[in-house]
Amino acid sequence: MKRTATLDELAALVGGKVEGDGALRIRGISSLEEAGEGEITFLAELKHRARLEKTRASAAIVPLNLPPFPRPLIRTPNPYLAYAKVQAFFQSREGHPRGVDPRAFVGQGVQIGRDVSIFPFVFVGDGCELGDRVTLYPGVCLGESVRVGEDSILYPNVVVMDRCLVGKRVILHPGTVIGSDGFGFARDGARYVKIPQVGIVVIEDDVEMGANCAVDRAAMGKTWIQRGVKVDNLVQIGHNVTVGEDTLLVAQVGIAGSTRIGNRVVLGGQVGVVGHVQIGDGVMIGAQAGVGQDADPGQILSGSPAFPHREWLRAQAAFRKLPEMKRALDELERRMKELEKAVSGQRSAVSEDWEKE
Amino acid sequence: MKRTATLDELAALVGGKVEGDGALRIRGISSLEEAGEGEITFLAELKHRARLEKTRASAAIVPLNLPPFPRPLIRTPNPYLAYAKVQAFFQSREGHPRGVDPRAFVGQGVQIGRDVSIFPFVFVGDGCELGDRVTLYPGVCLGESVRVGEDSILYPNVVVMDRCLVGKRVILHPGTVIGSDGFGFARDGARYVKIPQVGIVVIEDDVEMGANCAVDRAAMGKTWIQRGVKVDNLVQIGHNVTVGEDTLLVAQVGIAGSTRIGNRVVLGGQVGVVGHVQIGDGVMIGAQAGVGQDADPGQILSGSPAFPHREWLRAQAAFRKLPEMKRALDELERRMKELEKAVSGQRSAVSEDWEKE
Amino acid sequence: MKRTATLDELAALVGGKVEGDGALRIRGISSLEEAGEGEITFLAELKHRARLEKTRASAAIVPLNLPPFPRPLIRTPNPYLAYAKVQAFFQSREGHPRGVDPRAFVGQGVQIGRDVSIFPFVFVGDGCELGDRVTLYPGVCLGESVRVGEDSILYPNVVVMDRCLVGKRVILHPGTVIGSDGFGFARDGARYVKIPQVGIVVIEDDVEMGANCAVDRAAMGKTWIQRGVKVDNLVQIGHNVTVGEDTLLVAQVGIAGSTRIGNRVVLGGQVGVVGHVQIGDGVMIGAQAGVGQDADPGQILSGSPAFPHREWLRAQAAFRKLPEMKRALDELERRMKELEKAVSGQRSAVSEDWEKE
Repeated sequence: MKRTATLDELAALVGGKVEGDGALRIRGISSLEEAGEGEITFLAELKHRARLEKTRASAAIVPLNLPPFPRPLIRTPNPYLAYAKVQAFFQSREGHPRGVDPRAFVGQGVQIGRDVSIFPFVFVGDGCELGDRVTLYPGVCLGESVRVGEDSILYPNVVVMDRCLVGKRVILHPGTVIGSDGFGFARDGARYVKIPQVGIVVIEDDVEMGANCAVDRAAMGKTWIQRGVKVDNLVQIGHNVTVGEDTLLVAQVGIAGSTRIGNRVVLGGQVGVVGHVQIGDGVMIGAQAGVGQDADPGQILSGSPAFPHREWLRAQAAFRKLPEMKRALDELERRMKELEKAVSGQRSAVSEDWEKE
Repeated sequence: MKRTATLDELAALVGGKVEGDGALRIRGISSLEEAGEGEITFLAELKHRARLEKTRASAAIVPLNLPPFPRPLIRTPNPYLAYAKVQAFFQSREGHPRGVDPRAFVGQGVQIGRDVSIFPFVFVGDGCELGDRVTLYPGVCLGESVRVGEDSILYPNVVVMDRCLVGKRVILHPGTVIGSDGFGFARDGARYVKIPQVGIVVIEDDVEMGANCAVDRAAMGKTWIQRGVKVDNLVQIGHNVTVGEDTLLVAQVGIAGSTRIGNRVVLGGQVGVVGHVQIGDGVMIGAQAGVGQDADPGQILSGSPAFPHREWLRAQAAFRKLPEMKRALDELERRMKELEKAVSGQRSAVSEDWEKE
Repeated sequence: MKRTATLDELAALVGGKVEGDGALRIRGISSLEEAGEGEITFLAELKHRARLEKTRASAAIVPLNLPPFPRPLIRTPNPYLAYAKVQAFFQSREGHPRGVDPRAFVGQGVQIGRDVSIFPFVFVGDGCELGDRVTLYPGVCLGESVRVGEDSILYPNVVVMDRCLVGKRVILHPGTVIGSDGFGFARDGARYVKIPQVGIVVIEDDVEMGANCAVDRAAMGKTWIQRGVKVDNLVQIGHNVTVGEDTLLVAQVGIAGSTRIGNRVVLGGQVGVVGHVQIGDGVMIGAQAGVGQDADPGQILSGSPAFPHREWLRAQAAFRKLPEMKRALDELERRMKELEKAVSGQRSAVSEDWEKE
């Protein structure tokens, strides 16, 4: 059954202030264009105000500085954040947990919390521990002795290999692999011998990872995804990497082994970071950049190899004009020769003058 | 049982013209080198004609302008296209559909068309609709209320999440994920709060997507892959992206949220496109390029950031010569100084001349 | 049960020489910092010698040239390789094979060797052949007539499509797809018609591939991964590609169709190689490079498009200084103009001199 709430209740949820009828009952939230009767909408930025005029929504979440508007309102400093919270409220289902489906496989010595949902064709290896309200969708495979914290959701075909630890409220999207072997080999003449990867992966609370990512287990010790990290799709994280709290990794990023990414870092799409470097807190790396060395906290870098973004912008602008620069250089060269000739001619002329005298 | 056909039947299939015995029975098609007795081969381009001489094939599909050749022929303007059609004919099996395997899980209220093949360990969520002759290979997982159109093939471990729509004759290769959550978060101080992704993915008819791709569901509304789009492996498509008809996305392309790709566009391998831009119809983007802004229809772009391909070729050529340019510049600088000195010396000399007079 | 060994036995395993009590019983191997009583450790390089002083390990594997050290030692030219072998020894379990789980699906005419481990929810298509001691983890799907050689391990959700061949001692990490269709289409006006991909993939002995990779089957013939190739995560290998023996492909590499990679090549992370080129034996390509043409054996290349690494280093260094070069060029231009003016002024002056005479 769909949930509903009064305007007052939603304002309390988002920490906002009601203008108008607080008892108004709301049954959903949608965009300015799509919201209808009985729904609330939101205006993320004042500049889109014209679109608010035409909405058919019964109420709106708006910025603090919106001029008076003839509809019930919730005013808040961050309407986008308020939208996230209200939408989450309306999306949450009161539905019954599924329990453990008889078509799932559960190994020996597995501990399972309350109100879990374990779908058909899930494999839970020996010695796993699942917290309360964990959801494992079809095709999820947990190796031996994996721990998954309460309220975590593992979408279809997620794989977590032996002994890896997944925190609370973690979301892993379909096809993501946690704890595959790191890429480690020792040379034996012309051939390679596998270095056994005996470490684990630790994923802390409130991490979300997209679809078809790969996070390798450590050679020894742990690969470590810290609290609140958000990872997009198809991201590669090598063995023994640390990713600091509240860091964002955009799609198709690759991080090589033993690198340490700080807190609140943002790596743009398709960025690559070499192994064994340290990226400081708050660093931002532009899309497709290639980071080959340490980055101090707060730096903004672009390019492959990456260097400070502002310098890169100027170098890149000059790059486009390279053919022009080349022509200018050749032209200068030509003029230089001419001038050198002229000057040496004059020099003779001047000498002659002298001689004549 | 393998199919066979007469030369006349194959010519009708590809819209070609027979030379020689149209009643000749053919049992397969293969390359110039590998085709044998009873098989037909094809010559895609006239320049490979020498290889035709040695073929052991009993017949050949050839371009219109091939000089007379002493073997039964089908002449056609596009032998490569004809090959595709003939090979498809010989590959198609008359085999019986499997029906719904009892080891598959089918939820409540699911509608299933005729002659489907649903393999073991397939999960079909409540309220799904499957068209006639749909094939779901092992490990495929459909969330709730997913629709899959007739003749579509979902290879092993493909995941389609709740409410997403898949058209007719769609092919999704193994491990591809449709409808994972988009990468959307609102900041709440230093932390991120998830924006619920309540939209869907729509995949229209005749789309083919490679292995281990990820297509995110829309935040609101739809992520939209239009008719005839062909996608290679490991491609990332963000939430609310539109990909226009008959567009090609080569392997490892990444497209960020809300971007609109036009019709008949080609994005080369590993290309990245930022969010919220528009790529016009017929645009071609070179491999590894990074597109940071709108592209007008028909443009050819390369580089990261991308700009017109011809300019980029020249800039790139100059880039390789940068160290040389740098030396030339330093050398000019040196000559300039010398010349300036010489000229200022002459100036004194000339002045002296004047003074003497 | 955990294995143990004497120092003498371990020395024999790695081809090293014992110093001290060869009868000492060892129960595991770990890093200098983490190894404890009863364990052996290893010193990979002499420069980390200070860390050896503090280890609590009962013995150590050390380079030949380490000065005398008061603990039982195994001396060997390559301690890192010795670590790999000793760790593999301690990790190998004597555990019983699982056999074929009744919840797995095994098709008709399947041949299965001795001591295999086939987990629940594995699908083995008709006519497959599995060698001795093969392990198929949950969710693995083999199409029809797939062959997997002895001692190979296919991790959860690996897919190997029809007729592909996997050698001995091959390791495929979770989610990797072998034998999806290559990306091949013929144009038919504005639309694309699928070219049936009727070839296979051959993976030779001792290959290891990471998680969520994709290797396409050949259009005709074979896509060929030769003996000893090691592939990291999320790598794309197009149809009809050949990858030579003992080659390394780092994460997120993409190789387009029909390209031939030689033996002992190293492609860095996120490298892209276009189709139909040849990369010679022993070539090394730097991370994120884009290879657009053949590369001679032994070359080291970087950049996109790639050219010799040393040249690229210089070009890249100059690239960062482009804005400076631009300014220097403009400044030279200015000085040139001034000088030209000055010289032409003198020329007049000199002429006047002449005229006066």
